[in-house]
Amino acid sequence: MREADITVADMGEFGLIAAIAALAPPGPAQVVGIGDDAAVLRAPDGRVVATMDMLVQDRHFRLDWSSAFDIGCKAAAQNLADIAAMGASPVALLVGFAAPGDLAASWAQELARGLVAECSRCGAQLAGGDVSSAEKITLAITALGDLAGRAPVTRAGARPGDQVAVAGQLGYSAAGFALLSAGLTEPSALVERHRRPRPPYQAGPEAAGLGATAMIDVSDGLLADLGHVAGSSGVRIEVESGPLADARLRAAAAALGGADWRRWALTGGEDHALAATFPPGIALPGHWTVIGAVARGEGVRVDGTEYAGPSGWNHFPEQG
Amino acid sequence: MREADITVADMGEFGLIAAIAALAPPGPAQVVGIGDDAAVLRAPDGRVVATMDMLVQDRHFRLDWSSAFDIGCKAAAQNLADIAAMGASPVALLVGFAAPGDLAASWAQELARGLVAECSRCGAQLAGGDVSSAEKITLAITALGDLAGRAPVTRAGARPGDQVAVAGQLGYSAAGFALLSAGLTEPSALVERHRRPRPPYQAGPEAAGLGATAMIDVSDGLLADLGHVAGSSGVRIEVESGPLADARLRAAAAALGGADWRRWALTGGEDHALAATFPPGIALPGHWTVIGAVARGEGVRVDGTEYAGPSGWNHFPEQG
Repeated sequence: MREADITVADMGEFGLIAAIAALAPPGPAQVVGIGDDAAVLRAPDGRVVATMDMLVQDRHFRLDWSSAFDIGCKAAAQNLADIAAMGASPVALLVGFAAPGDLAASWAQELARGLVAECSRCGAQLAGGDVSSAEKITLAITALGDLAGRAPVTRAGARPGDQVAVAGQLGYSAAGFALLSAGLTEPSALVERHRRPRPPYQAGPEAAGLGATAMIDVSDGLLADLGHVAGSSGVRIEVESGPLADARLRAAAAALGGADWRRWALTGGEDHALAATFPPGIALPGHWTVIGAVARGEGVRVDGTEYAGPSGWNHFPEQG
Repeated sequence: MREADITVADMGEFGLIAAIAALAPPGPAQVVGIGDDAAVLRAPDGRVVATMDMLVQDRHFRLDWSSAFDIGCKAAAQNLADIAAMGASPVALLVGFAAPGDLAASWAQELARGLVAECSRCGAQLAGGDVSSAEKITLAITALGDLAGRAPVTRAGARPGDQVAVAGQLGYSAAGFALLSAGLTEPSALVERHRRPRPPYQAGPEAAGLGATAMIDVSDGLLADLGHVAGSSGVRIEVESGPLADARLRAAAAALGGADWRRWALTGGEDHALAATFPPGIALPGHWTVIGAVARGEGVRVDGTEYAGPSGWNHFPEQG
C-alpha cells in the first residue's frame, strides 16, 4: 500500500493518536501528556482560562478552498485568540477529531501539523484530545490559558470615556474571501489571511497589563463584536472609520472594481484581531490603533451615525 | 407556536446558549462563567487535569434507545470519570453541541439538564462551550479537574507485586444492553446502568490518597483497559474472575437463558468503574474489590490463562 493511500481507518484510533502525538512536542506546562485518561498541565496562576469551539466541514471550512494545514492553523487560531482576549497567554489545546474512515491519513496529519504550527506561534502545546468517526469532518478545539496573576478582562467593563482600540488586522479575511470568490489570488497578503488568520496573541496579556477595561476577539466582525462589549458593559461605542483605512484593503477594493473596503473592516469576521477599551489617557503601544470611544447609551455607531451597510449591525441589539 | 414545536434554529445560537446557561448554576470554581470569550476557573492546586471526548449520533448514542437526558448524563460521566481516573476531582465541563437546525429545542435543553445533573453528582459545573449546526447531533465534552496537591495517577506506575482492585460496577452496562436487545427492561438496575453509568467519582482521589500506583477508567472493558495499564507499566496483570461475581449479573444471565455474565464483567465497556493498582499490604476500603495482582511479564491473564471468549483481548498486545 502506498503511503498516500493509507486512510484513517487503516491507521486506527490508536495509530492515529500515536502519529499525532509524534508531531506534538511537549510544552513547558506539561506534567502528563497525550496517552493517559487525561492530560495534566501546570496552572501556576491558580486559575485556568478555558474555551471551546466546534468546526464542521462545509459549514466552517471547505476542503476545496483550504488545505488541511490551513484548516488546522485557523481552528487553533480562533480558540487561542479567545484565550488572548481574556488577557491570558495560551497554554494548551485539546483536539477532538471526527472523520469518515476513508479520509486519507495524510490529511489528518497535515491538520495536526497546522494545529501544532499555530500553537508554536504563541507558546502553547497540543496536549490531548479524542479521535472518532463521523460522516463529516468535525473538529472540537478546547484551548486553555494562563493569566499569570492578571485580572481577566471580560466584555463587561467598558466605561464611558474609555478609548477603543484594536490590535491585529481587520477586514483582511473578508477581503481575501472576496478576492478568492472573484478568482483572484493577489494581493497574497489578504488571501493568505483568509486561509490563516494572524491573531496578535501577545497583545492580549499586554492589554490586561495596560489596564484594559474590556476586550473581545473579533471573530464575528468588528461592529458585531463591539456590540457584545456594548451590551455586556451597558454602554454605547462610537467607532471612527478613518483609522481603519489600510492600503492593502484599498488596493484590493480597487482591484475588484470599487468594492467597499470599509464594510470588510467593519463587518468582516474571522480576522481574530483584538478589540479592547482602555481608560482615557493611557498611552498605547504602536500596534494598538485607537478607533473610537465609549459613551453613555447603547449599541455601536460609526462616524456618528448608525451603520446601514449590508451585514450591518441592526440585528445586534437583540443580542445585547 | 407551541413550545414543543420550537427548534434549535428558532432559538438561534445566542438563545440556545442563554437557555443552557440558565440551567447551569455557577460552581465554587467559577471566576468568569458562560458568555464571555472564555471561562475562567479556579485551579488552586497550580495544575489542571483536562480531557476531551467526542460523541456522534448513531455511533456513540441512538435517539431511539436513550433520552436526551440520559445521553447528557452518559456524555458527562465518561469525561468526568477520566478526571477521577487521574486521582483528581472534577471541576468543570465545556460542552460543544452541533445539531440539525430542526432539532427540537426541548431536546437540547434535556441534554443540558442531563449534563448538569451528572456534574452535580461530583461537584462540577457546566462552565462554557459552543453551539453549531451539523447534520448529525455531535457532542464534544471537555472535563477539567483538580488534584488538590496529590500526584496524578497515570497508567504507567503498576509494579510487580501490586494488588489490582476495582471500584464501581463492572458488566452492568453490557448486561443492560443485552437485556434491552432481548426486549427486556428488568432488572431495571442493569438497564438503568446502560443508559446512565454511575462512575465512583470519589474513589479516584481516594485511590490517589491511598498510594495507587496506576489507575484507569474502565470504558473499553476491564481486560482492554487493564491491557493499557499493563502495556504502559511494562507488567503482566493477573485477574481472578471469582470476585467479579455479582448477583444481579447472574440473575440477568439466567433470565437470558444462560448468558455469559463473566464476559459482561471482563469485556463489557461503558461502566466507567475505576481500576487501580496498589502496593501490597495496603488495606482498601470496602467499596474497592481486589480482583488480582501485578506480575512480571506482559498482557492480561484471567484465572491463570489467556482469556479466549468473544471480544477477548487477543488483539490488545498491539495497543500496548
